[in-house]
Amino acid sequence: MKPHPARPGDIVQAIDTPALVLDLDAMQRNIERMAAFAARHRVRLRPHAKTHKCAAVAMRQVAAGAVGVCVQKVGEAQALAEAGVNDVYISNEVVDTEKLARVARLAGEVRLAIAVDSALGVERLAHAVRAAGTTLDVFVEIDVGHGRCGVEPSTAGALARQIVAHGLPFAGLQAYHGRAQHLRSASERSQAIAHAAACVRGAEASITRSGLACPLVTGAGTGSFLYEATSGVWGELQAGSYVFMDRDYSDNEPTPGAPVFEQALFVKSQVISRGAAHAVVDAGLKAHAIDSGLPTVWQRALDFSNGGDEHGILRPQTMGPQEPLPELAETVWLVPGHCDPTVNLHDHLVAVRGGLGDGRVEAVWSVDARGRTD
Amino acid sequence: MKPHPARPGDIVQAIDTPALVLDLDAMQRNIERMAAFAARHRVRLRPHAKTHKCAAVAMRQVAAGAVGVCVQKVGEAQALAEAGVNDVYISNEVVDTEKLARVARLAGEVRLAIAVDSALGVERLAHAVRAAGTTLDVFVEIDVGHGRCGVEPSTAGALARQIVAHGLPFAGLQAYHGRAQHLRSASERSQAIAHAAACVRGAEASITRSGLACPLVTGAGTGSFLYEATSGVWGELQAGSYVFMDRDYSDNEPTPGAPVFEQALFVKSQVISRGAAHAVVDAGLKAHAIDSGLPTVWQRALDFSNGGDEHGILRPQTMGPQEPLPELAETVWLVPGHCDPTVNLHDHLVAVRGGLGDGRVEAVWSVDARGRTD
Repeated sequence: MKPHPARPGDIVQAIDTPALVLDLDAMQRNIERMAAFAARHRVRLRPHAKTHKCAAVAMRQVAAGAVGVCVQKVGEAQALAEAGVNDVYISNEVVDTEKLARVARLAGEVRLAIAVDSALGVERLAHAVRAAGTTLDVFVEIDVGHGRCGVEPSTAGALARQIVAHGLPFAGLQAYHGRAQHLRSASERSQAIAHAAACVRGAEASITRSGLACPLVTGAGTGSFLYEATSGVWGELQAGSYVFMDRDYSDNEPTPGAPVFEQALFVKSQVISRGAAHAVVDAGLKAHAIDSGLPTVWQRALDFSNGGDEHGILRPQTMGPQEPLPELAETVWLVPGHCDPTVNLHDHLVAVRGGLGDGRVEAVWSVDARGRTD
Repeated sequence: MKPHPARPGDIVQAIDTPALVLDLDAMQRNIERMAAFAARHRVRLRPHAKTHKCAAVAMRQVAAGAVGVCVQKVGEAQALAEAGVNDVYISNEVVDTEKLARVARLAGEVRLAIAVDSALGVERLAHAVRAAGTTLDVFVEIDVGHGRCGVEPSTAGALARQIVAHGLPFAGLQAYHGRAQHLRSASERSQAIAHAAACVRGAEASITRSGLACPLVTGAGTGSFLYEATSGVWGELQAGSYVFMDRDYSDNEPTPGAPVFEQALFVKSQVISRGAAHAVVDAGLKAHAIDSGLPTVWQRALDFSNGGDEHGILRPQTMGPQEPLPELAETVWLVPGHCDPTVNLHDHLVAVRGGLGDGRVEAVWSVDARGRTD
């Protein structure tokens, strides 16, 4: 069993490296800002827990007003339910019969919902739920421009009818535009969500024509949620990354009028080798995900380059201010390129109160759903 | 606790997705080919276990003639030692005093070695080993062109003297050229290793001048090992990826005269959504690492594109032969871009005998050192 990287009460300097470290004060402010935003716009907030996979974080989001959390996988739902989260929405498709049997059993333990985008999916889900004697809310996912999962909006009504025909509760529309989140300019994101809203209206018309009502439209992410919230179309926001933030989101042009979130998630690393013109830290591809680009060095004028599985290479910045390289054994804080898959690499989140400099470890949380791709 | 994705005796079709699946027959042939190559060239083989992090694989490598394994991290060494591997070399630098105390304790349990590249590292290691009353072999890492860790070759003798002055056994040189492994043409790789060999000779001269002998030169990887083995300089090969292979290595021009290794590692995925012109599988950034590029689809004329944390998107190939898209709920086998960080995402390796089509699960192995970046 992997040892804990720190103990409550430890000074920050004592945290073993590489470790995933959370600035608790910054995270709490992020949670409160998003909750206040949702309340002000009279939309529900159901943060995506694929970001943190951690019941301790989910509980704090719920305590601040969230109605529950989203997840992407059955295994995530099971892990968070076991850890005490009692309202979970699997905002994704499941068609495997064994997995659906797990979904149906879990629906007997917590309030559960799921998305569908195929007749086969509805049929298999209904069969599993009948066999287990449980029920759960079912959302129809529509493709609002992402080009991934989801039916064509004009066919949403037909699928909703099938849900109802199988005796399942039709709960509304899953309408998430993933690619819109990382469009760099606010106007591009605004246009993408305007297109998504038109798709949702088309789907709602299809549902109405099929003789049903659409109880809720759920979706949105950290890059676009202001546009969904002010569209008059979405009733629930699913943003996830706002709780931690990452390098990639900091590259977005801010959305005018949206709350600003702080960087709360860091990888603590240590210099293990020093050359004349570079330093090597003990955090590489197995400590942070680089699908959205390399990490940056927190508050230091240093460039990070990929050093492979277990190393990162630091050099003086090629542009901008210069500062000396860190010394051997020195601590270096990294800001991951993409928070969600970075968290998934770690077993523990070290929660620090009082800042990265002089703070102390308040808690070491388990990343409950780490590795739960099942 | 994450459920096992399969049980011994299961048919391949029953393996839950996404799962890391190993073609045992192909892996065994890879192990035997590399062992035979090393024996033929009279060099020792110490495969890098950062690739598989799995004692069951390490045991098979040792049974075929390997002298032990390499790892990059103290936590990997501990996890593999706990699982029964009794000869481990940490081919990397450790300067943290708490970590070095763990190294020193572990040296009392298994045959252990470590690399150093700084006076501070030697001093702290010696202190830890004295406190624990243990000993271990110490290699001096030299930079042979990678530009990461390692001292300048001409200073290797001075560091070796410090090792000896602290009462530690100087075991030789760590000389690994990581960047050479993925140079696409065989001639580029050959030139890079010729440069590395010149660096090693310089370091050996420095060691001789300091009045010491160099017992062993250790290094090499899956892209370059033939050049190290035939150089007359290296006495031990550290190749790791050969046991599994990946998409990135298949992009290398083959090395003339080197054994050919088979793709043995796959991610089993399932289609969970079907559009008119694309299919979506349940394996994304949390099921395979994309630092060396996206996965390819095994033996099917389909293009894979990134669908985010939990999705992959399949489309007909833009070039070459065409075939129909897979149907909803169908199995799709992916070849990961880079095996090492992909394995690190999974808790289990499902070992299949008899091929991916009609085979059966022979064993489900724990990825013992998964997440052990500590």
